[in-house]
Amino acid sequence: MLYECSSGLLGNGHHLHGISTISFQAWLSQSKRSKDYALPNSSWSQDMMDLYSRFLEMCKDGTWKRIPSYSDTADHVPGKACVHLESLKLANEKERKGTRFFPRNLDTEGVGFEYAMFLNPSEKRMVCLFQPGPYLEGHRGFAHGGSTATIIDSTVGGCAIFVAGRVMTANLSINYRNPIPLGSVVLVDSKVDQIEGRKVFLSCHVRSIDGQTLHAEATALFIQLNSTKSLQQQVSSQ
Amino acid sequence: MLYECSSGLLGNGHHLHGISTISFQAWLSQSKRSKDYALPNSSWSQDMMDLYSRFLEMCKDGTWKRIPSYSDTADHVPGKACVHLESLKLANEKERKGTRFFPRNLDTEGVGFEYAMFLNPSEKRMVCLFQPGPYLEGHRGFAHGGSTATIIDSTVGGCAIFVAGRVMTANLSINYRNPIPLGSVVLVDSKVDQIEGRKVFLSCHVRSIDGQTLHAEATALFIQLNSTKSLQQQVSSQ
Repeated sequence: MLYECSSGLLGNGHHLHGISTISFQAWLSQSKRSKDYALPNSSWSQDMMDLYSRFLEMCKDGTWKRIPSYSDTADHVPGKACVHLESLKLANEKERKGTRFFPRNLDTEGVGFEYAMFLNPSEKRMVCLFQPGPYLEGHRGFAHGGSTATIIDSTVGGCAIFVAGRVMTANLSINYRNPIPLGSVVLVDSKVDQIEGRKVFLSCHVRSIDGQTLHAEATALFIQLNSTKSLQQQVSSQ
Repeated sequence: MLYECSSGLLGNGHHLHGISTISFQAWLSQSKRSKDYALPNSSWSQDMMDLYSRFLEMCKDGTWKRIPSYSDTADHVPGKACVHLESLKLANEKERKGTRFFPRNLDTEGVGFEYAMFLNPSEKRMVCLFQPGPYLEGHRGFAHGGSTATIIDSTVGGCAIFVAGRVMTANLSINYRNPIPLGSVVLVDSKVDQIEGRKVFLSCHVRSIDGQTLHAEATALFIQLNSTKSLQQQVSSQ
């Protein structure tokens, strides 16, 4: 729903002007103090490993970038280049102690959201390799619709961060086509369709790795946040 | 996303014909073998307790019914009156061992989804008292959009079960209006708007308990499943 990074492809003037190298690199770089959960572990299936290796290979020429992932939301925005929300006085640090980033809130490998994201900057496209674990069950043997919504929101959100920096989900609309079996691997593929001022429109498809099964398709609208106003003010005046 | 119960207000002929008492009672009754997570625990805030007590009071004359909730999806459909999916051969029981219902997958009280649902049968309305814990974080101090989607999907899904029995989410569209602070209590209020054949259209609002803040509004479409066809067949022929 809510994501932050000080700079994306959109600047304060809301026009494409190229990547702010420092903050973009900071976003991509690995946090020194936290475990990166977007790396292979023993719970990953062969399908997941194969797909991950394929994308890693495509990272070599710089076409794709691997995005790290942490259990603490603070680590999702590493480095001084990105805006911290403390100034907005919305989140009391004391109360925040012990919080966890929702899709990374389980300690045991393989039971929850196993995923790794890759960004294609020139295509403004973010893909997520997703292996839903047994703790994400909705109907018996299948991923809960809320877990599908969560991985879609996270993927399109990551894509929106890239073009617009600090953003917030305004709308998420999902058509569920075929249930996702627990333990399978699916590809969540999102891209920016249009940018209008502070609005970023995206679309997303969730498919089986052979491309034969469309599990879900979604559209999303994200709003670029203006750091001079409080979050609540901005949301209220949308 | 996916829910099941053999009978609701909609029968096999897809017309309203009244409640199938046996299965409806089974759905409402408490499982003998599992912990009901929709009961107060020490993590519930005073706001959550007060709201829960208010709804319990309204249950006394039968206007509202409290809905139990379990960590095993099998227990969400207690009793023999409800259809079990084993016959559909979609979920291998061996593989299912160790699965958990997504919104009830955390062991520690208070860190994840704390919620309790109440059904108003005559209004075809389901409300959910929801206290998001610190492990549901998206932006700092606020609930992740995916967790909001999850509680909305679960609430409208419960409402759709009541009228149509076994159902599956076909569409979920959410407008996020104001972020939900972690630890606050919100009311997720859903109702059936329309029924067309096997389609159940619902709407949902998520508001602060004083009603002053609209956090999110959503529409949903659920499809009633026909137990003579496999789940995959039905979804593909939608």
